[in-house]
Amino acid sequence: MKNIGFIGLGIMGRPMAANLIKAGHTLYLFNRSPQNMIELSQIGGIPCQSPQEVAAHANIVFVMVSDTPDVEAVLFGPTGVIHGINPGSIVVDMSTISPLATRRFAEKLSNLGVEMLDAPVSGGQIGAEQATLAIMVGGKKEIFETVKPFFEIMGKKITLIGGNGDGQVCKMANQVVVALTIEAVGEALLLAGKAGVDVAKVREALLGGFAQSRILEVHGERMLRRTFQPGFKIRLHQKDLKIALQTGKELAVPLPNCATAQELLTAVAAQGGADLDHSAMIRALEILAAWELGG
Amino acid sequence: MKNIGFIGLGIMGRPMAANLIKAGHTLYLFNRSPQNMIELSQIGGIPCQSPQEVAAHANIVFVMVSDTPDVEAVLFGPTGVIHGINPGSIVVDMSTISPLATRRFAEKLSNLGVEMLDAPVSGGQIGAEQATLAIMVGGKKEIFETVKPFFEIMGKKITLIGGNGDGQVCKMANQVVVALTIEAVGEALLLAGKAGVDVAKVREALLGGFAQSRILEVHGERMLRRTFQPGFKIRLHQKDLKIALQTGKELAVPLPNCATAQELLTAVAAQGGADLDHSAMIRALEILAAWELGG
Repeated sequence: MKNIGFIGLGIMGRPMAANLIKAGHTLYLFNRSPQNMIELSQIGGIPCQSPQEVAAHANIVFVMVSDTPDVEAVLFGPTGVIHGINPGSIVVDMSTISPLATRRFAEKLSNLGVEMLDAPVSGGQIGAEQATLAIMVGGKKEIFETVKPFFEIMGKKITLIGGNGDGQVCKMANQVVVALTIEAVGEALLLAGKAGVDVAKVREALLGGFAQSRILEVHGERMLRRTFQPGFKIRLHQKDLKIALQTGKELAVPLPNCATAQELLTAVAAQGGADLDHSAMIRALEILAAWELGG
Repeated sequence: MKNIGFIGLGIMGRPMAANLIKAGHTLYLFNRSPQNMIELSQIGGIPCQSPQEVAAHANIVFVMVSDTPDVEAVLFGPTGVIHGINPGSIVVDMSTISPLATRRFAEKLSNLGVEMLDAPVSGGQIGAEQATLAIMVGGKKEIFETVKPFFEIMGKKITLIGGNGDGQVCKMANQVVVALTIEAVGEALLLAGKAGVDVAKVREALLGGFAQSRILEVHGERMLRRTFQPGFKIRLHQKDLKIALQTGKELAVPLPNCATAQELLTAVAAQGGADLDHSAMIRALEILAAWELGG
């Protein structure tokens, strides 16, 4: 029987940890603000004082925090995981962070005899609650096989993409395609709308051909209905595109439309829209056109 | 029984006209170069000397040429349709051209007692040959109903989008989404590839979530396999984006990523790739990154 650690109990981490507890596992918990730890302790979780303390108790330590510096602090900070963890243990970072930083973290942990998987997810809060997350994994195959039963408690489509960092690369590629497809649908629907056409009919016709996408289907409808409740928040997609653009810079891959999409998200955030669904990216195009699709 | 005219017998127009002839209709034909007219005369088509002569014989005149100025010349030039056509006749322009010019043409024809439909298609040469084209129509409902039996001989998914020009608007929106989704998939796969990941696995994983699109499926695979035979030629998509950008300018709708995609197509054309499939847009991103996805 393995002891499990779970660090980061926010919107995503809390329901994921809860699913592990409900499946009968012993979970050592840490979160910066104690409230969510206390709630999970009522269904059997064990609160700890630091990532270090979690790591001292656990064979597998899951991490679900916001950004690259947060993962770095949790792992390598003054009371970080490395100060408590035993050789032979596994760190599983399910946050969405830089793939290149992930590879550096995996190497540092490897030097301490600790294995790492990167396992970012997609599916959002609902996916976390209903345990239907898609999980994109990077790391060694045998480590993946060890952790897989736990992934299966938290998600549904679990794919080993490749070695360390490759799960993050896959997630990054996903977020680039999603952002740029939203932008594409936004430009097209806005242009069609301003040309005086029934945009719902255009969306319908386009779904039947090569313009078809899940984004046109779901986010295209959100644009038409002006329902910009997340879904997936602009501020989170800003972070994900920041990772993509930074990685592109490090690897010398220019990403022109990714850069534009990021600027459009910045514009929506500047108008107070950082917590809207990412389909609200069309608001930035509307601002530029001084015209509203739903108007 | 109606007499039919068909002007423009190129890669698309020839098989479309052939399907109408094979269905038993009398077709009056015009094409700038006579070769395709002669071939179609062997299965029963009737060659004419000018669009004017076609129009004098026909109740419904189909037009399938390259660009806005070509349609303008066919309709309003010195030996154009208007010099032969009888009031009560119908002009059906199946070319992909400017929606705003289309509305002006429809109004000019209307003043002569001639009705017009715009009916651009998607599905390419194969769709034309197999009569599986998607046809997006703009114009009056009763005129659409009159022409619909002929559309059904040439295509499968036939949609009345709205009034004059609205079929062209829909096609334009389609071409914007397609181009920008190709660009999105190109940026994402190139970034993932340069980050050292198995790009086929990334494509596969992304198809299961919100990044899914027909383009990721079909054109993503072309990018991986380096099969850039059209499909749909870069030079044609350049023309379609030119229409979108021009329309955006006339209607004051900025289209930032459409503009970038157009420049990337220009770069591929500059490398001699104008006749490659539009999925070769990734070649321009590869040039910028000095790295090849399939390398």
